[in-house]
Amino acid sequence: MADFESRREKMVHIVEDLLKRKQYAQLRGSLLPLEPVDIAQLMDDLSGESIPLVFRLLPKETAAEVFVELNPEHQEQLIRSFSNTELKEVLDELYLDDAVDIVEEMPANVVRRILAHSEPEMRKSINEILKYPEDSAGSLMTTEYIDLKRDMTVEDCFKRIRRNASDVETINVCYVVEKSRKLLGYVTIRDLFLASYEDEIGEIMDTNLLSVTTLEDQETVAQRFSRYDLMAMPVVDTENRLVGIITADDVMDVMQEEATEDIEKMAAILPTDKPYLRTGVLETWKSRFPWLLLLMLSATFSSIIITKFESALSACMILTSYITILSGTGGNSGSQASVAIIRALSLHEIRFSDLPRVIWKECRVAIVCGVALAAANFLKMMLIDRLLFNNPAVTPLVALVVSLTLICTVICAKTIGAILPVLADKVGLDPAVLASPLITTIVDALSLLIYFGFALALIPM
Amino acid sequence: MADFESRREKMVHIVEDLLKRKQYAQLRGSLLPLEPVDIAQLMDDLSGESIPLVFRLLPKETAAEVFVELNPEHQEQLIRSFSNTELKEVLDELYLDDAVDIVEEMPANVVRRILAHSEPEMRKSINEILKYPEDSAGSLMTTEYIDLKRDMTVEDCFKRIRRNASDVETINVCYVVEKSRKLLGYVTIRDLFLASYEDEIGEIMDTNLLSVTTLEDQETVAQRFSRYDLMAMPVVDTENRLVGIITADDVMDVMQEEATEDIEKMAAILPTDKPYLRTGVLETWKSRFPWLLLLMLSATFSSIIITKFESALSACMILTSYITILSGTGGNSGSQASVAIIRALSLHEIRFSDLPRVIWKECRVAIVCGVALAAANFLKMMLIDRLLFNNPAVTPLVALVVSLTLICTVICAKTIGAILPVLADKVGLDPAVLASPLITTIVDALSLLIYFGFALALIPM
Repeated sequence: MADFESRREKMVHIVEDLLKRKQYAQLRGSLLPLEPVDIAQLMDDLSGESIPLVFRLLPKETAAEVFVELNPEHQEQLIRSFSNTELKEVLDELYLDDAVDIVEEMPANVVRRILAHSEPEMRKSINEILKYPEDSAGSLMTTEYIDLKRDMTVEDCFKRIRRNASDVETINVCYVVEKSRKLLGYVTIRDLFLASYEDEIGEIMDTNLLSVTTLEDQETVAQRFSRYDLMAMPVVDTENRLVGIITADDVMDVMQEEATEDIEKMAAILPTDKPYLRTGVLETWKSRFPWLLLLMLSATFSSIIITKFESALSACMILTSYITILSGTGGNSGSQASVAIIRALSLHEIRFSDLPRVIWKECRVAIVCGVALAAANFLKMMLIDRLLFNNPAVTPLVALVVSLTLICTVICAKTIGAILPVLADKVGLDPAVLASPLITTIVDALSLLIYFGFALALIPM
Repeated sequence: MADFESRREKMVHIVEDLLKRKQYAQLRGSLLPLEPVDIAQLMDDLSGESIPLVFRLLPKETAAEVFVELNPEHQEQLIRSFSNTELKEVLDELYLDDAVDIVEEMPANVVRRILAHSEPEMRKSINEILKYPEDSAGSLMTTEYIDLKRDMTVEDCFKRIRRNASDVETINVCYVVEKSRKLLGYVTIRDLFLASYEDEIGEIMDTNLLSVTTLEDQETVAQRFSRYDLMAMPVVDTENRLVGIITADDVMDVMQEEATEDIEKMAAILPTDKPYLRTGVLETWKSRFPWLLLLMLSATFSSIIITKFESALSACMILTSYITILSGTGGNSGSQASVAIIRALSLHEIRFSDLPRVIWKECRVAIVCGVALAAANFLKMMLIDRLLFNNPAVTPLVALVVSLTLICTVICAKTIGAILPVLADKVGLDPAVLASPLITTIVDALSLLIYFGFALALIPM
């Protein structure tokens, strides 16, 4: 299929045009070949009034799949426009985990209406899952899976799968439980195909189980999925009783979310879990202002240091010109190191005991970087600043001071940038929060101290 | 299962101890309950000589799975230590896509040995996949899948699946092809269970196919998987002939890789695709130095601006102290905006036509942020810098100049930070490469111009 993204804007115009000309049959025909998520995105681009109209053109099953993918405001608008029968029809088609996601986004009165029109079974399950904290394994799971008993034969299992295939989230992995629902093992659909019809499940199941408990963080879940290449994972309570399963498609969304969160923290943004365009101005402000304020106030240290050395600066004004280069290079060097370390930590590539290796590596990288930058800077100051711009104040001594400061700053920046995230992780803080911006502030103050130290020592004032 | 990460260091000690005491049976017993990836990680932590020893303790099938997860140096060491029979045994157990990954990492003489001992079928497939460029859909796919013909009955399919289940990467989705191998549709294993034995595949298959071509970028593949919640995706050539499939587990690795790459680019690091600790000092230097140098040289603009306004600065030295605060706050504001936009672009949340909305939003956020920061700064300068530190040079007029500059800088920074990535994306450049560091350099120069502009206009010198 051609890429939907590239045809999206054209499709919106076509749909709007067909709506205006009331060509509903043709509209239905042009929507049907699309994937549900693409139809939902088209509808999200339409004006509010036409959404229920388009929605009613879709066949029942597609309609439910599209509904799941719509943005929450449009879901709410649709639910309010539904008759009770329509609402029940959509709800009956939903998978449990999708229903829970929708309920989580709706205001209380809509939730009451949804629960009132769900099947009693589903209502019970929704309420159960809603109990788990957001971002926990419990809130991510579905309770629609296939469970087997150990004394069933493979043939029994095939029958059971055939009976339940349309109601469960996946049939690729089935879980074997005791009467008490204690988890014993699992079989994949592939295992079943490779066994004989009369084999007993207890003999062919794999008991080497990877599971998570309901309260575990979704980040842990995502890490295990990618580490162990899983397609599904059972969720158990504290007594190892099976309560649900998590499937790979939900975990992919979590992985995107978690990466976004890490990126936001590294850029000094408090994470929000909404897409960019759906976040209001005030909400965006709230996620950005606290760090900006904190970093601005902590930059006071640098400004105090500069004030202290005011007399040195006024004796040799040209030194002022190089403050921004020094603090910029220091900041960039530090954030290169810290960002590399933070990502390695979050992918479990390094741990606390690697700290000496990390420091040793960053020091060597820093020395090579620092010396190369210093040499480039010395040349630049002599050739461009002094000769090209004809500024006699840029003496070789000044260039030497700036270059020496560069070397020391890069070494400090990379070492601090590497150590701080590892320490933060060790004491249980989020390394990403300590990332580049905070390290930049520390490095700024340090580089100024080094700068004035070299200047006072080497330049006669 | 308890979390392996937390037991890892203890396990390494246990394994080393058992090796020293030659308790091989016990060692084998303590390794067997572990997942292959965990055994591999333990072995990677051991000293080189003991690796072949531990490897030979493992049952054949586990050994192959562990082999896949070892780091490339240890794989190479093992292959060199293998007899031809051993090598053949391991190769026969490998899935095709894993074999390709290994071959890609090995030096030429090892590759020749591997190919010489593979089954002719596998050798042909490995050579085929190796033709595709790195990071393309072709290099990610496997050719081990189940293909069906449209005139087969469901019962035929079950038989075919049963026969091939042990050799293919997945049986969850089967693809229907013509004689020419043109892709017609697919059926999931669930569809097969829900159909009757005598149904024909042509009737029950889904023809609404999402596929990628062999040369498409792996990032596109990952985006489609997560957008359409796929478990597997067919890979076709330019004539829509099925050549392979990609499964979700491989895509999860791609998603982690792509997120790491974005993060690295945002921190002015040239992406490497190796884990942190496996990258050498020189390689790390090469990935970091170019941007550091470029950014340092481009900071020359700021230093030229400061030099130009030297006389203003020496007339009012206190202005110097606030340069780092202004450039720091500008840089942070800019990177908040650019990082948010870059992430939204890479998740396809915004596109070029959203630019006016993006600018309008960032302007409003910037005004609220800027005014709040300016107010906080004015208070801080009056109360802390002037009263607490008793510095009479910090006059209300100086505080006003710094505060006004802050407002303008934040607005410039956020607007530029929002516009540049969208423009870069539009003209086909990678927005992440243009991210925070480069924007910071531009914002630095601008904020200095604004600063000296306000200073010259408002402060009598």
